[in-house]
Amino acid sequence: MLNDLKEQVLQANLDLPKHELVTFTWGNVSGINRDSGLVVIKPSGVAYEKLTVKDMVVVNLDGEVVEGDLKPSSDTATHLVLYKHFDAIGGIVHTHSTWATAFAQSAKGVPALGTTHADYFYGTVPCTRPMTVQEIKHNYELETGNVIVETFQKQGLDPNQIPSVLVHKHAPFNWGKSPAEAVHNAVVLEEVARLAHLSYQLDHQVDDMEQELLDKHYLRKHGAGAYYGQKTT
Amino acid sequence: MLNDLKEQVLQANLDLPKHELVTFTWGNVSGINRDSGLVVIKPSGVAYEKLTVKDMVVVNLDGEVVEGDLKPSSDTATHLVLYKHFDAIGGIVHTHSTWATAFAQSAKGVPALGTTHADYFYGTVPCTRPMTVQEIKHNYELETGNVIVETFQKQGLDPNQIPSVLVHKHAPFNWGKSPAEAVHNAVVLEEVARLAHLSYQLDHQVDDMEQELLDKHYLRKHGAGAYYGQKTT
Amino acid sequence: MLNDLKEQVLQANLDLPKHELVTFTWGNVSGINRDSGLVVIKPSGVAYEKLTVKDMVVVNLDGEVVEGDLKPSSDTATHLVLYKHFDAIGGIVHTHSTWATAFAQSAKGVPALGTTHADYFYGTVPCTRPMTVQEIKHNYELETGNVIVETFQKQGLDPNQIPSVLVHKHAPFNWGKSPAEAVHNAVVLEEVARLAHLSYQLDHQVDDMEQELLDKHYLRKHGAGAYYGQKTT
Amino acid sequence: MLNDLKEQVLQANLDLPKHELVTFTWGNVSGINRDSGLVVIKPSGVAYEKLTVKDMVVVNLDGEVVEGDLKPSSDTATHLVLYKHFDAIGGIVHTHSTWATAFAQSAKGVPALGTTHADYFYGTVPCTRPMTVQEIKHNYELETGNVIVETFQKQGLDPNQIPSVLVHKHAPFNWGKSPAEAVHNAVVLEEVARLAHLSYQLDHQVDDMEQELLDKHYLRKHGAGAYYGQKTT
Repeated sequence: MLNDLKEQVLQANLDLPKHELVTFTWGNVSGINRDSGLVVIKPSGVAYEKLTVKDMVVVNLDGEVVEGDLKPSSDTATHLVLYKHFDAIGGIVHTHSTWATAFAQSAKGVPALGTTHADYFYGTVPCTRPMTVQEIKHNYELETGNVIVETFQKQGLDPNQIPSVLVHKHAPFNWGKSPAEAVHNAVVLEEVARLAHLSYQLDHQVDDMEQELLDKHYLRKHGAGAYYGQKTT
Repeated sequence: MLNDLKEQVLQANLDLPKHELVTFTWGNVSGINRDSGLVVIKPSGVAYEKLTVKDMVVVNLDGEVVEGDLKPSSDTATHLVLYKHFDAIGGIVHTHSTWATAFAQSAKGVPALGTTHADYFYGTVPCTRPMTVQEIKHNYELETGNVIVETFQKQGLDPNQIPSVLVHKHAPFNWGKSPAEAVHNAVVLEEVARLAHLSYQLDHQVDDMEQELLDKHYLRKHGAGAYYGQKTT
Repeated sequence: MLNDLKEQVLQANLDLPKHELVTFTWGNVSGINRDSGLVVIKPSGVAYEKLTVKDMVVVNLDGEVVEGDLKPSSDTATHLVLYKHFDAIGGIVHTHSTWATAFAQSAKGVPALGTTHADYFYGTVPCTRPMTVQEIKHNYELETGNVIVETFQKQGLDPNQIPSVLVHKHAPFNWGKSPAEAVHNAVVLEEVARLAHLSYQLDHQVDDMEQELLDKHYLRKHGAGAYYGQKTT
Repeated sequence: MLNDLKEQVLQANLDLPKHELVTFTWGNVSGINRDSGLVVIKPSGVAYEKLTVKDMVVVNLDGEVVEGDLKPSSDTATHLVLYKHFDAIGGIVHTHSTWATAFAQSAKGVPALGTTHADYFYGTVPCTRPMTVQEIKHNYELETGNVIVETFQKQGLDPNQIPSVLVHKHAPFNWGKSPAEAVHNAVVLEEVARLAHLSYQLDHQVDDMEQELLDKHYLRKHGAGAYYGQKTT
């Protein structure tokens, strides 16, 4: 069942330690098959070096395990909320990558300070509000997803143009059209968070980049007028 | 004698350079056999790449060498105090890992700023008080153990819930149910110290995480209600 | 056509990930054949591990593709402006290397704080002014080149003595007598930016080095009186 | 001639990139044979990966080349001054290692903030005064050695107890009983500089360690009462 997607999700999980985004088992990737509404996700707490295709867990959007002997990631409910509300995304990755997590712990978004950021994120990568005691105590992982969705809705942000978020006092979630693209975006977020951190140390009052420069770089890589890279036909 | 434990202690010592926790010989791991009250520990000042099972030193809780041709680690007396007072622990590791040591040198504990910390440490990892001249001059290594125990007792901390400490102007000690778990906790401490350091640079007044979020993350991985990872039966 | 230069440009591009100057495809190197006025440059958005000599694109100084099946780097127009105005240079490299980019994002040049800097750069590596809306919207990449040239002209700087620049809110460009030397200078810029950043954290008012020391170190390696290294005859 | 020493000096030079102390050719190691008063040193500007025993240059204490086809390191005169004045040392290493160089550029010594430092350096690693214009312009490398010696003499420091120095606006020099020990000390200096830098960021007013703790750690590893490591008989 969904063998292609399982391979993609396995590979994307294995790419996390390769890109130094995770310590031990602190991260997980999932992918969705939109036709069947089924999600493939990493099992909980299994070391990356031991993961195989057969370990991948298949769940439906209600969180029920459809296939697999292992428990799915403890963050599964968060992933499912994002798949339900962000309907153009095909893969999600959660890590505790160092520089992005420092921003999350400081309750700050990652500002758009330069063209590296603008090549991938069309504005500040937001940080969610603190969760309420009620949200933490009941259905915590599901509410984590809800607070992410709320952040994008209240701030009028497009999850396809800003494919990452920082969860307050926690860490980043990233997504993309596929599990591989989600991991790609996670690598970029970590690097632009690092760049922003180092810039901020040079100048605590550093300005965001000009809107026109943000437009230029984001739009030369994304959308109808893009001219970066090779034509893919 | 205690061959299994010697293998565990050797492997745990070899894991220190693998996880980039040590420079040269600056670290040591021990393990205890609770039935016999015997402790296996790394010899003093021997390079990791030359360590073999036969080099491991066996001492009793009075610090007498029971087996082994080499001198035990110069920090042996500290380990023994911890084994005597923290009776649920089975392994101890001492390193001068960079980020944790920076906190120790600054006389600051590592605060619980986010869920990465909460997944392993149920609150601030404390830093001990300065040692007195008397403590430094007489039985220094034993008194180092005593000041660690005092820190946990005076602050009402449970060493099983906070398996690490920073020794003032020195460096961290970590422990766990086994030598391997102690090393695991040493890796985590180093990463959460780094996260806290980077967060602090973004906001010098950064708040600790909410108690409820600390509870949620610590307790979903530890204790009776844990639901992270696979069931181990 | 220009096979030697293509090999040099390919090798210089491959050296970017080797020296950890790039993430994914975020960098490009070109080289010029001054006799023919033809420039060899990396194709746009192709992964380094897949690059071959045949992928190299040849363009003339008007930006027309003379040979090659792929689109040249989206930064080609910037390279061409620099080749036209800096007539002693033979290679150019653009990266988003971390520490240098942090200075660019903070709108600061990299100051000459010590002899490491002085061994390669005869003074501050400048940061360009913000581009105007007009420059960003029309011929952005060409105007990026123009603003670099303007920076050197207005400040009376010699591009042969300061073979790097930071583009405001963007990242560094570096050059040299050959593609290989341009990459060498890019490595040095990244390291001296890091050194300057760390020095600045120790002392926010840190002074530039004395002019005499700058002269001494720059001139013992460069120009008629140089005595560093072996004689090359 | 001096083949053993040449092998030691070669190996010590090769250890610099292995310990990530150098970029390109930015570092050099020498060793002295005290009986003959001859010094073996790295040739100037030769890449580490191409160095062989035959490339090592032999000079006398007047700086005359006694054997070797290549020019000795441009820093040779500095090494020779140190060998003449610090008569118990057998090897010298100069690097531009990142964290130590940041202190040199900031004109600050590396303070004794913790036991890692105290295990190797019996107090602050000093930074030299700025050199005069006269010193920079005439016999610069020799005067660099003189200002190091002056620093130790004026401050009453023992070069055997503090085997490193930072040269103002330049970088560290380190020494030891042998070339290998000098490299060992260079690795330690870099790590304690990093630890001090990170500590300083946590607390700009961080105190030096207590004198008694400095004594305890330095003296348990060095001198007549040492008890760290294995007995070497």
